[in-house]
Amino acid sequence: MDNLAPAWPHIDTPAAVIDTARMQRNIHRMQARMDALGVRFRPHAKTSKCAPVVRAQIAAGASGITVSTLREAAYFFDDGVTDILYGVGMVANKLPQALALRRRGCDLKIVTDSVESARAIVDFGKANAEAFEVWIEIDTDGHRSGIRPDEPALLEVATVLHEGGARLGGVMTHAGSSYDLDTPEALAAMAEQERAGCVHSAERLRAAGLPCPVVSVGSTPTALSASNLAGVTEVRAGVYVFFDLVMHNVGVCATDDIALSVLTTVIGHQPDKGWAIVDAGWMAMSRDRGTQKQKHDFGYGQVCALDGTAIPGYILSGANQEHGILSHDGAPDTDIAKHFPIGTQLRILPNHACATGAQFPAYQAVTEDGDAAEWSRLHGW
Amino acid sequence: MDNLAPAWPHIDTPAAVIDTARMQRNIHRMQARMDALGVRFRPHAKTSKCAPVVRAQIAAGASGITVSTLREAAYFFDDGVTDILYGVGMVANKLPQALALRRRGCDLKIVTDSVESARAIVDFGKANAEAFEVWIEIDTDGHRSGIRPDEPALLEVATVLHEGGARLGGVMTHAGSSYDLDTPEALAAMAEQERAGCVHSAERLRAAGLPCPVVSVGSTPTALSASNLAGVTEVRAGVYVFFDLVMHNVGVCATDDIALSVLTTVIGHQPDKGWAIVDAGWMAMSRDRGTQKQKHDFGYGQVCALDGTAIPGYILSGANQEHGILSHDGAPDTDIAKHFPIGTQLRILPNHACATGAQFPAYQAVTEDGDAAEWSRLHGW
Repeated sequence: MDNLAPAWPHIDTPAAVIDTARMQRNIHRMQARMDALGVRFRPHAKTSKCAPVVRAQIAAGASGITVSTLREAAYFFDDGVTDILYGVGMVANKLPQALALRRRGCDLKIVTDSVESARAIVDFGKANAEAFEVWIEIDTDGHRSGIRPDEPALLEVATVLHEGGARLGGVMTHAGSSYDLDTPEALAAMAEQERAGCVHSAERLRAAGLPCPVVSVGSTPTALSASNLAGVTEVRAGVYVFFDLVMHNVGVCATDDIALSVLTTVIGHQPDKGWAIVDAGWMAMSRDRGTQKQKHDFGYGQVCALDGTAIPGYILSGANQEHGILSHDGAPDTDIAKHFPIGTQLRILPNHACATGAQFPAYQAVTEDGDAAEWSRLHGW
Repeated sequence: MDNLAPAWPHIDTPAAVIDTARMQRNIHRMQARMDALGVRFRPHAKTSKCAPVVRAQIAAGASGITVSTLREAAYFFDDGVTDILYGVGMVANKLPQALALRRRGCDLKIVTDSVESARAIVDFGKANAEAFEVWIEIDTDGHRSGIRPDEPALLEVATVLHEGGARLGGVMTHAGSSYDLDTPEALAAMAEQERAGCVHSAERLRAAGLPCPVVSVGSTPTALSASNLAGVTEVRAGVYVFFDLVMHNVGVCATDDIALSVLTTVIGHQPDKGWAIVDAGWMAMSRDRGTQKQKHDFGYGQVCALDGTAIPGYILSGANQEHGILSHDGAPDTDIAKHFPIGTQLRILPNHACATGAQFPAYQAVTEDGDAAEWSRLHGW
């Protein structure tokens, strides 16, 4: 993408840049994989929170979306998406918002993992003559929420929902601990654990005479590592659309697959220390240090030339609010002022695309022709 | 503030709550200190990025403000503030924005720490018949940008500016490494180092026949630890307005001084692990883990009751995007579901107020009477 450079000087820095060619490649890679495995694909919109990105995912074949907040659900429903899974456990004080969305015609699905919340859902549903579609969250890897596949609570929650007039839509799980792995074998094993646990949960429900049409699994690493999805009806994944340095270290993308970067300008130097100071600090990169515990620590990000080519060994080693410290990872580069003069524009690949994107009100979506369009994104709840 | 609770259920969670009584106390404490030390006070608006907060700081006696982006400068200028220091090193591609602000009547001051940027400023100034007011950034603690007080570059930069037609407004420094300290003695020594280095720089300029009316120093820890500010004309500080857990560990505030918290709702449990799951994940708290290397690691935040009282030993020990893991710091609380039932509302004190505030489009400003007002804040560049 060497031909991008000429169009860029008009973009103020720092800016969140989407390389749309890389994004489209990531979208098609994942969709082709899901098509080959014979499952529907429901991307998680929490990564981009951006309508044009989600439109591209749906155009490529996605069936509905996942969201992490009800505000995202409303935003994407207003943009024309109706099949929406709100993937965070429902609680009583959010039911009025969920009801309002359903009353407007949104085919919103909600999730729960407790008898207490299931009761709140059916009570509120009865009081408002609404049959919510509810999916039960399954814990297949112990990393967060959900009911373990063998727990008695699974049938208790399902029974409360089913007998209380809710629509039992299925089971869903997210093996988020896949982010801690970095070998193909371990990732494939986690994908199988995620699949098997969720399918087993569905089988328990069906054996008890309860409906369970959907079996939904996924995370970017497991989605890209599964070889068999028998019994699964759909997969969810989010960060694959942009990828990032954490996913690079997990081993599911290369640095030149990473579609999100932060455009920055060199504003000064401390030559004795081998530092260039740039105008992308943690407010631009986010405070995410997800690669800190991985096999390659990229600090606050990998430095790239304006054309998107990584410059090996140069990272953002430190960050204050609006100052980033760019340095060589290892021996200090005492010629850094010559290598990166004041005014030089660079792109920084982020540790975690979901966190970095959230720091910006909009993306600059850049095409292979060097055209840049501003794509706004959702902020807040 | 026990009487806050009744008014709160209408606030959706997660929300960024300002305890306005604590905020006012923090503002008056700092202003009174600056008044006693005989210096002007220029708060850093980057912490709140919120007009009503800055209005309260000015009402208490602040003289002008500091900002971290030119967009902040425009936002606060539109709200009536004219005396504004843009505290990040100026670079050529930002000069048109700075010029536009000055042409609109904003008394904007800019900073530089290099001959190269100084030349860009005077060249652009000449081309546009604008005498920019420029302050020279001094490095008194080696933590980021600036010219060291004894460096020859100080006089070179000043001469380029002065002879090039810019207005040499003064010198400024920020001893950001004070955040790494945690004893009164070390903080007082850093405050003196910051003062002495900046005053020495001003004296060098004056001895060379160059003007240097302003000597500006500051960070929250040094501002609250200095006992002598001889030669200093103004102090800058930002985070003191809200304080946070990092400042608590530094030793310059108590937990009940912290005016910013995140209101959250318990959405589930993993009782075997002693976890309550809340709807404040890293998207609400930010990824800032500033207390990780300090004497007390608060995870992603200290748990408080709805009335703002800290619940000792309970922290957010983990965070995904919209899920926080609340647990006891030490032995797991296997009765956690009884202590924090689903639906319980809590407030979480943040590691770093500047980072947490930035995750929200608006604050909920709550008074002692329990009234809540929405105060919008600036997002992006």
